[in-house]
Amino acid sequence: MKITGVRVRDIRFPTSRNLDGSDALNVGDYSATYVIVETDGGASGHGLTFTNGRGNELTVAAVHALRHHVIGLTLDEIKADMRGLYRKLTVDPQLRWLGPEKGILHMATGALLNAVWDLWAKAERKPLWKLLVDLTPEQLVSTIDFSYLSDALTAEQALELLRKQQPTRAAREAEMRAQGYPAYTTSTGWLGYSDEKVRRLCEEAVAAGWTHLKMKVGQDLEMNRRRAGLIRSIIGPKGRLMMDANQCWDVPEAIRQMHSLAEFDPWWIEEPTSPDDVLGHAAIAREVAPIRVATGEACQNRVIFKQLLQAGAIGFCQVDSCRVGGVNEVLSIMLLATRFGIPICPHAGGVGLCEYVQHLAIFDYIALSGTLEDRVCEYVDHLHEHFVDPVRIVNGRYAAPTAPGYSITMKAQSLADYEFPGGREWRGPGATATVDRAASNSA
Amino acid sequence: MKITGVRVRDIRFPTSRNLDGSDALNVGDYSATYVIVETDGGASGHGLTFTNGRGNELTVAAVHALRHHVIGLTLDEIKADMRGLYRKLTVDPQLRWLGPEKGILHMATGALLNAVWDLWAKAERKPLWKLLVDLTPEQLVSTIDFSYLSDALTAEQALELLRKQQPTRAAREAEMRAQGYPAYTTSTGWLGYSDEKVRRLCEEAVAAGWTHLKMKVGQDLEMNRRRAGLIRSIIGPKGRLMMDANQCWDVPEAIRQMHSLAEFDPWWIEEPTSPDDVLGHAAIAREVAPIRVATGEACQNRVIFKQLLQAGAIGFCQVDSCRVGGVNEVLSIMLLATRFGIPICPHAGGVGLCEYVQHLAIFDYIALSGTLEDRVCEYVDHLHEHFVDPVRIVNGRYAAPTAPGYSITMKAQSLADYEFPGGREWRGPGATATVDRAASNSA
Repeated sequence: MKITGVRVRDIRFPTSRNLDGSDALNVGDYSATYVIVETDGGASGHGLTFTNGRGNELTVAAVHALRHHVIGLTLDEIKADMRGLYRKLTVDPQLRWLGPEKGILHMATGALLNAVWDLWAKAERKPLWKLLVDLTPEQLVSTIDFSYLSDALTAEQALELLRKQQPTRAAREAEMRAQGYPAYTTSTGWLGYSDEKVRRLCEEAVAAGWTHLKMKVGQDLEMNRRRAGLIRSIIGPKGRLMMDANQCWDVPEAIRQMHSLAEFDPWWIEEPTSPDDVLGHAAIAREVAPIRVATGEACQNRVIFKQLLQAGAIGFCQVDSCRVGGVNEVLSIMLLATRFGIPICPHAGGVGLCEYVQHLAIFDYIALSGTLEDRVCEYVDHLHEHFVDPVRIVNGRYAAPTAPGYSITMKAQSLADYEFPGGREWRGPGATATVDRAASNSA
Repeated sequence: MKITGVRVRDIRFPTSRNLDGSDALNVGDYSATYVIVETDGGASGHGLTFTNGRGNELTVAAVHALRHHVIGLTLDEIKADMRGLYRKLTVDPQLRWLGPEKGILHMATGALLNAVWDLWAKAERKPLWKLLVDLTPEQLVSTIDFSYLSDALTAEQALELLRKQQPTRAAREAEMRAQGYPAYTTSTGWLGYSDEKVRRLCEEAVAAGWTHLKMKVGQDLEMNRRRAGLIRSIIGPKGRLMMDANQCWDVPEAIRQMHSLAEFDPWWIEEPTSPDDVLGHAAIAREVAPIRVATGEACQNRVIFKQLLQAGAIGFCQVDSCRVGGVNEVLSIMLLATRFGIPICPHAGGVGLCEYVQHLAIFDYIALSGTLEDRVCEYVDHLHEHFVDPVRIVNGRYAAPTAPGYSITMKAQSLADYEFPGGREWRGPGATATVDRAASNSA
């Protein structure tokens, strides 16, 4: 099976109209740079990277700049040297200057690699999590680029972590198939929602069995306190409340706000400051303990995660499935977190991210962490209807996917309707969204 | 004077043919995302960001995605709120997800902001360094976004640093006009050159008065030792030898190599590992002292520099003029370095970077550091012939520019000849370069 082409589509959902996904710094149209890896056998692998609307054309263009590294390879060649493919994409002697391993180029790398993993999983007729679980520790480690990690994690140490969980994997796999992976919900507390809407959503969430709820916090401490009090009054003292600042504070302000918000017993404070600020997160973590610091959705690569762990800066590792370099780099970040004893609670606020991360969380439990303590996987109730094999939430848990692949394949009709700028939802007679021409210019 | 349009051109020089600029990880075609800010008065501002060949189309597209933030503003509006313009570009609620403030999007921001500064300097009929020197401390500080910096540098502290040097500025300005700013050369030691070529270039450099030479080092310790011995034998014990690893080592390997290379008395080791690895640089700095660690050309923004300084990770700050967010963010990084007592030796290996950084170094001396101790500004002898107002090196020093602007305006003929892929040098009958279609595909 040989890769004969890579197609890319610019898919955008007009979520900004309802302020879904709104937070301290982002008001977006949930979008996907959607990649289809085509083969001579007719099979195809699908992958995407999530973006926030305008600029999606840039990640699309970046996939075009990278795709020649993939076209022409056979699946067998890729399986034999996944690390080599990762490095072809990330150590390109000209493109590398535009990163390295960060931002637009790296997100495009993630979309492309995830599509290749989807192809592999479909070829084996396994959901991605099961493909990963069935790979030997040696095979898993062979997909990882350990560059810049050896002061914190070597290939030998990674093998050791994986081997340790091998004898007991079968029981955890059966448990996951029967019960699924615990989730929490972010859909209740977007910053742009009114108090009334937040109240209603929280009451519905509690009624639906959710035990962990996340709220957005912003610059305004009084508003943050009011919202926190409202949600805490609904979920009661035993419910877990997480707070998410989406990078809106400097280090001293994060400490000031969290000292005040501690009264509402937050379990974690997420993205209190710049995702690049390892030392800042470490300072905040020291000052706000026992509240723990969480971050990851905007952390660019394994080198930042390595340092967050080395510095004791995070109590939760919120790796993103497609901001970093695909499954390959996610594996290295999960191994790092495991080595440092930090739970992985993947980020999933966006389109397609829930579909992705359920595989990562289930693999983590079966093959890496061996525990569910302090682990919950984010769930956001938006846009699942566009996927061929959408997530299924049962009693506040992700049901283990059973269909082959990485669950990211979108329905053909959705791709057609939401393609930007030509799709029906953006241009046609029944358009629900309008193209902001000044702001979307890409010519 | 109102900005009526922003044009962008994809300019590439086929430098990879001679391995100019080759190092441990990069073999490129020096390229520029070239921005022209047009006004209703006929005046225009020019700026560029440097890239390494393929992928330049991505930074070009990113300027297109950002330009609506600039079009329609008057120069007076911009001058009154430069910080506001910086934040419009960097805190865009949809584009920000693609960074924040890093990689392709941030490089495009740098090109655009530098073009605006060029416009401002030309309107005042001053070279950029003189425009900056003549701004009051309050005006300079008003251009800077202090977000994420307040745990290391506040606006008040920045004002204090600038005011301290005010009384003695005039004498240093006269000195710069008379003698210029000390430079060092990187043109002698590219990794792809033969020993014979390196020997000849080093001998010529010493004869031309250069006292500081930089060599590239790679994975191969024996080759690094041979090269270092060769260059040290030519420059003698008093010449200063800098080494540049271009990120090719992990932390333990950097320490191992530098312990061996210490014999050749390097003044600094540049980019020993990943530019994202603050803690790694700090570990290396501790282990290889008194050899100092230098980095900056691939450091994405002020948050990384803040941490490098907080952690004691660098002995030299090699800020890049167009990887970060233009003059605005460069000023914040220079202020941070000054506050931590670390000398600024700007990065200039690329096209147009020498033209840019001479202004920054001269401003630094006159208005910020007040000293030349341990300060040298990089010089690379490539491609200056394409600029309208190229750098002038006199006795190993940069002569202070006198023409209005940021010295980055390219000759119209050069822009036409090297435009990719349509320019004469890439396509025409007299083409000296060939377009690698597979690798340059952007469709």
